[in-house]
Amino acid sequence: MKTYRFNAEEGLNSLICTETETPVPAAHEVLVRVRATSLNYRDLMLIENRYGQPARPGVIPLSDGAGEVVAVGAGVTRAKVGDRVAGTFFAGWIGGPFSRAAGATQRGSAEDGFLATHRVIGEESFVHIPDYLSYEEAATLPCAALTAWNTLTQGRGIRAGDTVLTLGTGGVSLFAVQLAKALGARVVSTTSSDKKGERLTALGADHVINYSAEPDWHKAVRRVTGGEGVDCVVEVVGAATLEKSLKSVAIGGDIGLIGGVGGGKGSLDLVALSQAIVTLRRIIVGSRVDFEAMNRALVVHKLHPVIDRVFPFADAPAAYRHLASAAHVGKIVIAHDN
Amino acid sequence: MKTYRFNAEEGLNSLICTETETPVPAAHEVLVRVRATSLNYRDLMLIENRYGQPARPGVIPLSDGAGEVVAVGAGVTRAKVGDRVAGTFFAGWIGGPFSRAAGATQRGSAEDGFLATHRVIGEESFVHIPDYLSYEEAATLPCAALTAWNTLTQGRGIRAGDTVLTLGTGGVSLFAVQLAKALGARVVSTTSSDKKGERLTALGADHVINYSAEPDWHKAVRRVTGGEGVDCVVEVVGAATLEKSLKSVAIGGDIGLIGGVGGGKGSLDLVALSQAIVTLRRIIVGSRVDFEAMNRALVVHKLHPVIDRVFPFADAPAAYRHLASAAHVGKIVIAHDN
Amino acid sequence: MKTYRFNAEEGLNSLICTETETPVPAAHEVLVRVRATSLNYRDLMLIENRYGQPARPGVIPLSDGAGEVVAVGAGVTRAKVGDRVAGTFFAGWIGGPFSRAAGATQRGSAEDGFLATHRVIGEESFVHIPDYLSYEEAATLPCAALTAWNTLTQGRGIRAGDTVLTLGTGGVSLFAVQLAKALGARVVSTTSSDKKGERLTALGADHVINYSAEPDWHKAVRRVTGGEGVDCVVEVVGAATLEKSLKSVAIGGDIGLIGGVGGGKGSLDLVALSQAIVTLRRIIVGSRVDFEAMNRALVVHKLHPVIDRVFPFADAPAAYRHLASAAHVGKIVIAHDN
Amino acid sequence: MKTYRFNAEEGLNSLICTETETPVPAAHEVLVRVRATSLNYRDLMLIENRYGQPARPGVIPLSDGAGEVVAVGAGVTRAKVGDRVAGTFFAGWIGGPFSRAAGATQRGSAEDGFLATHRVIGEESFVHIPDYLSYEEAATLPCAALTAWNTLTQGRGIRAGDTVLTLGTGGVSLFAVQLAKALGARVVSTTSSDKKGERLTALGADHVINYSAEPDWHKAVRRVTGGEGVDCVVEVVGAATLEKSLKSVAIGGDIGLIGGVGGGKGSLDLVALSQAIVTLRRIIVGSRVDFEAMNRALVVHKLHPVIDRVFPFADAPAAYRHLASAAHVGKIVIAHDN
Repeated sequence: MKTYRFNAEEGLNSLICTETETPVPAAHEVLVRVRATSLNYRDLMLIENRYGQPARPGVIPLSDGAGEVVAVGAGVTRAKVGDRVAGTFFAGWIGGPFSRAAGATQRGSAEDGFLATHRVIGEESFVHIPDYLSYEEAATLPCAALTAWNTLTQGRGIRAGDTVLTLGTGGVSLFAVQLAKALGARVVSTTSSDKKGERLTALGADHVINYSAEPDWHKAVRRVTGGEGVDCVVEVVGAATLEKSLKSVAIGGDIGLIGGVGGGKGSLDLVALSQAIVTLRRIIVGSRVDFEAMNRALVVHKLHPVIDRVFPFADAPAAYRHLASAAHVGKIVIAHDN
Repeated sequence: MKTYRFNAEEGLNSLICTETETPVPAAHEVLVRVRATSLNYRDLMLIENRYGQPARPGVIPLSDGAGEVVAVGAGVTRAKVGDRVAGTFFAGWIGGPFSRAAGATQRGSAEDGFLATHRVIGEESFVHIPDYLSYEEAATLPCAALTAWNTLTQGRGIRAGDTVLTLGTGGVSLFAVQLAKALGARVVSTTSSDKKGERLTALGADHVINYSAEPDWHKAVRRVTGGEGVDCVVEVVGAATLEKSLKSVAIGGDIGLIGGVGGGKGSLDLVALSQAIVTLRRIIVGSRVDFEAMNRALVVHKLHPVIDRVFPFADAPAAYRHLASAAHVGKIVIAHDN
Repeated sequence: MKTYRFNAEEGLNSLICTETETPVPAAHEVLVRVRATSLNYRDLMLIENRYGQPARPGVIPLSDGAGEVVAVGAGVTRAKVGDRVAGTFFAGWIGGPFSRAAGATQRGSAEDGFLATHRVIGEESFVHIPDYLSYEEAATLPCAALTAWNTLTQGRGIRAGDTVLTLGTGGVSLFAVQLAKALGARVVSTTSSDKKGERLTALGADHVINYSAEPDWHKAVRRVTGGEGVDCVVEVVGAATLEKSLKSVAIGGDIGLIGGVGGGKGSLDLVALSQAIVTLRRIIVGSRVDFEAMNRALVVHKLHPVIDRVFPFADAPAAYRHLASAAHVGKIVIAHDN
Repeated sequence: MKTYRFNAEEGLNSLICTETETPVPAAHEVLVRVRATSLNYRDLMLIENRYGQPARPGVIPLSDGAGEVVAVGAGVTRAKVGDRVAGTFFAGWIGGPFSRAAGATQRGSAEDGFLATHRVIGEESFVHIPDYLSYEEAATLPCAALTAWNTLTQGRGIRAGDTVLTLGTGGVSLFAVQLAKALGARVVSTTSSDKKGERLTALGADHVINYSAEPDWHKAVRRVTGGEGVDCVVEVVGAATLEKSLKSVAIGGDIGLIGGVGGGKGSLDLVALSQAIVTLRRIIVGSRVDFEAMNRALVVHKLHPVIDRVFPFADAPAAYRHLASAAHVGKIVIAHDN
C-alpha cells in the first residue's frame, strides 16, 4: 500500500508517499481500500503549520476519506467486506456531547487521516455511505458537510419557514445552501462575484448578495428579509464578518461559529454583541451519530456535493496547491484509483 | 350583521341565521368582517351532539374563520383596520403549554366561532394571514393545518431525512403531506382508491398505499421504507388504525394522536404497544405562537390548501351536509361575501 | 391614588409623586393595588439616563411590582378581585419567542411600571404569585429571578450533575445560586469578600471564590471542578469578566449573557472565544409562561428571595440612592403600604 | 475464572458455574475482574423462559455488573488497568438514538452478561463508576437506575417544580424517587403497605399513597396535587396500572412505559387514552452516553442505591429465588469476591 505522510515544520515539501506492506486488521478493526479523499482549508493550515493544534509529525493527512471495506478483524459487526464507508472526522466521537477525549482523535492531525491507498481503522469510526453517491462525492462529507448540517440542525434547529445566511462559496457554505433548502428554509448567500452568485442560485439560494458591490452586506440581508434578519448564520469567515453577521441576524437567531473564527485573531465589539438578541454556538464538526442523521437527509434529497476538481493520488501535492490558490468553487478531491 | 347559532340537542335544523346590530369593539378587542370559514369533522360532531364536550347552547359554530379587521378598540396594538387575520382555535391559548384554562376557550363550542358576517374578538386571539393566501384558503388553517404542523414539528420533530405516514385524505392528512414535504421529509400515504392516490401524489406523497387493495397496509409501509418503518405517523383515524400504525413505525418513531382517537371507542392491545419502541403524543391543535410559526413555513413554501368546495354563507347548512356525505377531498369552505 | 413618574433627562430629582383619581379598569384590564415594588440596576440606569433605550418621559418607574387585584374589567377571566399577582417585565410577552413587539412593552421604561399605589394593567400581563411569598418577596421576581431562571433552564438546560458559575452578589446572581440548587446543580460562586462569601454559602453555593484574593478566578473555577470547568455561567457583569468566563466554562458549556454586557462597552478577544467550545446566549428576562414555570419551582422548593432592605413608598428616592451606593446584598424593596 | 451460564428451556436448574482459563483481551477489549452483579426482574423472566426475546442458550446471565479493569488489549484508550467500571446494558449502544443493531447487543440475553469472575468486554461497552460508590452499589445501576434516569430526563424532561409519580418499590421506582428529588421535583409514590411507605418517605417521597387502602389511587394522586395531576409517571407495572396512570397525569404530562408493559398482556381503553393530554414514551434503558450523564448527577448528589440483600457468588441461584419471592425492597446483589 501507498501512504502519504508529512511534517508540518517542513511544509508541503515534506508530503511524501511511501510504499509499505498492507496490514491485517486486528480485532474490532477494518481494513479500508481508500478510493477518494477531499481537502479542507484546515488541511492546508496543518501542512503549513499554522493550525491551532499542530499535527503530529509523520501523520497521514486528510480527515476526509471514503472507500471500500476489504477485510474485517475479529468481532466486527458494523461492517462486512464490500461495504462502502467514509471515515468520521473524529475517530473517537461516536455520539453524545463533544469531549476532550473525542477532540484528541481528530484525523489528519492527531490521528492518521486517509491519504493512503489502504487504512486500518476502528470498527466504530466510520459510517456507511449512501448508494447514490460516488466515492469521490462521499469523500467530501466528513468535515465540511457535517459542519454545515450541525450548524443548521443543532441549537434552535432550522426548519421550514426559517431563513439561513451563508457566506461565500467555501465547502461548508455550499453544503449549507443545499442542506438548508432540504430542511425547508429560505437561503440568503453572500459572494464576491456575480459569476459565483449564479452557482449559488443554481444550488438553491433564494437571494444572492454580491458583497463586492455592497460591502455593508448586512443591510442587504435586512432588506431581503423584510427588515427581520436571518434565523441562522453559517459563520465561516470570522472576525472580518462576525459583526456584520450580528447585524444580519433576527431576534432570537443563531450564529454558528465555524473553524478558527478568523484564525482566532481580532476582537469583537461588545456593543454589536449586546445589541443582538442572538445565540452564538461554536460548531466542532460532529459525531458519527450526526453523520448518520445527515446521510438520511442526503438520501431523501439526493444531494450531490459540488466538486471543483479531482486530482490523481500521485498528484496529491497539486491538490494542496490548488486549494492554496483559492480559485476553486466546491470541494477539491483526490481519486485514489488514478 | 348576520350570525348563525345552533343548539346541539336539536341538531343541524337548529342552525339558524339571525340579523342583529353590528357591535363596537371594547378595549382590547377588534371587530372582524369575516370573509370565510371552513368546517372540520369536529363541527359536524358538535352539531350532531356527539362530541366529547358538548357545545354551549346557542353558540356560533365553526372554529375556523378569516377576515378583515374593520374596527379596533382602545389599547389595541396587535392589529389595525384593514389587517387580514384568522382566528385561533383556542381564543385563550397564546403560547406555552396547553392548560385547562386554554381548553375552555375552544371556538365554535365553548366560545363563539366564526359563522357570522362580523365578530368581535380579543386582541390576542388571532394571527395575521399570509398575503399570498385568499381568505378562503386562510380559513382552512386554524384547526386542521395547525394540527398537522404540530404533529410534525413537536416531539422529536420531523426534518430532512425522516419519513412521515399519513392516513387517508381528510383535512389534517392533506396538510400533513404538504407540510411534511416542506420540512424535507419523505411521505408515505394511505388511501382507499387509486383516484385519491393520484391527488396525494400530486400533493407530494412519495409512496401511496391503497388500503382497499392491501388491508394489511402496515406491511406495505415497511416494504417501501426498506423494512425500517416511518418516523412519524399522523394518526387521525383511531382505534381502527392505531395497531397498524404501531406496526408501521420505526424504532424511536412518533405517533401523533389526533382528535378523539376513533371517538375514544375501542381498545389498544398492549402487545402491539410494548413491541413498538415509540412515543405516542396527544395533539391538541396548537397555540397562537405555533400558528405564527406555521405561517412562516407556508410563506416560504407558498403552500395552497386543498379546497374541495366553497358554499355561500346563505347555504351554510349545505356545507355541513356535504361534510356528512364524506364525498369530499380537501376542505369545505363557506364564503361569507356570497 | 399616588403615582411616581420621572424624566430621565432630569435624573433622580425628577422622581415626583402625585395624587390622581384611581381609574376604573376597561374591558380586559384589571386594577391592582400595588403592595410592593423592587429595584433593579436597570432602574438606576434609566433614571440616570444611561440605559440603552431611554425611558419615555413621564413614565412610571420600576418593572417589578406585586399587589392585589381590586377590580376587574369586562371579559376578564384570568383573575378575580382578591387575587395576588405580580406584573410581567414585558407587558406584552406572553409566550413563545421574544419579538420586537414584545420588546416594546418593557415596563418602567417604554410602558408604565409599578411605583404607584394603584395600576390598571392588561389581563394577560401578570402572573399569580405563590401563596407562601409575601408581596415584598414576590415583588423581587419579575426581572432578576426570571433572568436567572431562564439562564439556567433554557439552551441546554441545567440539571442534576451540572455545575453553575455565578458572579458576585447582585440580584440575578443570588437567585441563580438558589435556583441552580433547586435544579440539582452544583454551584461555584465568585465574590469580593469572605463576608459576602458566607452569605453565598448559606444560600447553597458549594464553592466560593474570593476574586479579590484570586484575581485569576477562572483558575480557581477550573481547580474546584477537577479541571473540567462549569456547564453554565450566569454572566452578569460583562466585558470585565467575559474572557475569564470563557476560560471557566467546560467543553459544551453555556454562557448566559445578561443585561448590557458591561454596558455594551469593550471588546472580546476572538482567541478566547475560539478556544472555548461554548454557546453564548443573550438572555432577555423572559415571558409570562416562563415566569409561571419558575413559580412552580419556587413553590416546590419554598425559596425565599434575599431582601437587603425595605423602604417606605414615601421614600422611594432613598431606595434608588441605596442602590446607587452598591452597599447592598440582595434586593431593595419598596413597601407601598408604608 | 468461573462463569455461570444457563439455558432458558431448562430454567434455574440449568444455571451452572464452570471454571475455565482466564482469557487475554484482544485489541480494543478489556478484561474486567467482576466484583459484583445485580438482578433485575428481566433476569428472572429470562431464566424462566418467559421474556419476549428468549436468551441465547448457554449465555452468561445478568446485564448488570461492575468490576476492575485488570488487563487491556492493544489500542485501548478509554481505560487502564485499575479503573473501576460498570458494563452498559446494551454492549453496542454508545450514544444517539436506539437502533435494532443496538438492541441486538442486550447483555445477559443476546450477549454474555456479568455473572462470572472475569469478563472480556469491548472498549466502548462500559462506563467509569463514581468513586464514592462501592462495586456492589455500582452493579445496581446499568439497567434499573438508567431506566429511571431516562424516564425522568428525556421527553419533556423533569425539572424543579414538576411532580413525579412512582409506582411501588421495585428497583426502577426506588431510583426514580431518588433521582426525581435530585432533579428538583416533588415526588408522589404509591405502595402496598405503610411500612414500605416509610422507606419511600425516607428516600425523599413527598406524598405516599397506600393503594391497598385506596385502590382508586389516581384520586389520591389528584388530591395531593391540588387536582392538577403529575407531570411524569414512571410506569413500571403495566396494564393493571396504565389506566390509572392516565387518570393521574396532568395536562401535557408524560408517562414513561417501562419493561414489557405488564408483560405486554391486556388492553388499554382508548377512552382513557383520548381523555388524557399526555405523551406515552417507551423507555429502553439507555445508552452509554446517558449512563455517563446519570453518573454525573449521582456524584453531585451522592445518592446511594437501596440494596436489599447481598448474596455470595457461589449462591447465585439463591439470589434468583429471593427475587422470585418478591419479598425484597431494593436491589438484590451478588458479591463476586465472596
